[in-house]
Amino acid sequence: MTTSTHPLVSSDNVNGTDVYGRDGAHIGAIDHLMIDKASGKVAYAVMGFGGFLGLGEDYRPVPWGKLTYDPVQGGFVTDLTEAEVQGAPERHDRWYDDRDWERRTHEHYGVPIYWI
Amino acid sequence: MTTSTHPLVSSDNVNGTDVYGRDGAHIGAIDHLMIDKASGKVAYAVMGFGGFLGLGEDYRPVPWGKLTYDPVQGGFVTDLTEAEVQGAPERHDRWYDDRDWERRTHEHYGVPIYWI
Repeated sequence: MTTSTHPLVSSDNVNGTDVYGRDGAHIGAIDHLMIDKASGKVAYAVMGFGGFLGLGEDYRPVPWGKLTYDPVQGGFVTDLTEAEVQGAPERHDRWYDDRDWERRTHEHYGVPIYWI
Repeated sequence: MTTSTHPLVSSDNVNGTDVYGRDGAHIGAIDHLMIDKASGKVAYAVMGFGGFLGLGEDYRPVPWGKLTYDPVQGGFVTDLTEAEVQGAPERHDRWYDDRDWERRTHEHYGVPIYWI
């Protein structure tokens, strides 16, 4: 996956796609995507931050709009900062079924909601 | 999966989502999705047609625009016909990396291409 330059990726192979900061530092990897069934848009990348940013091993849903695919690096690039990630609304068990949580999360990250 | 009414689905759980015809008949299931990394749009659902339409067990990439998610049925609905599926451009090993094949396939199915 990480060296692929194919424009398409299988949903089976998303696991492990790397995520880099603007400075090129490796900051984590995508664990899985959450897809809006009605529109077919990827809504969130659930990222694993392995000790990144002092968070310890953690998984956090990041709105897709915060990630840009970079074919040169073979991964995603983001301008996320530690403050943004740590300040995001806390995830709960049913976050993916909670429009209020979703709205607050998108507002926090400053990206448009995906469902309109 | 098939009974879920969540608006979001994990890329890990797409496998097995049912696909129904307009008449409600079960015609196959999604094996995996092919996602356009740059835009985050689902480009294709690769569907398994288990003996559907006389095709025998077969996997065919269907443009996302041919599928509509129906929360009531908990699956996707399509108006695909046997003639459309059988007449689609033949898949080859590198179809997911072949814009010409992709263009012909979208033209065949009468849906807009996803990459513009």
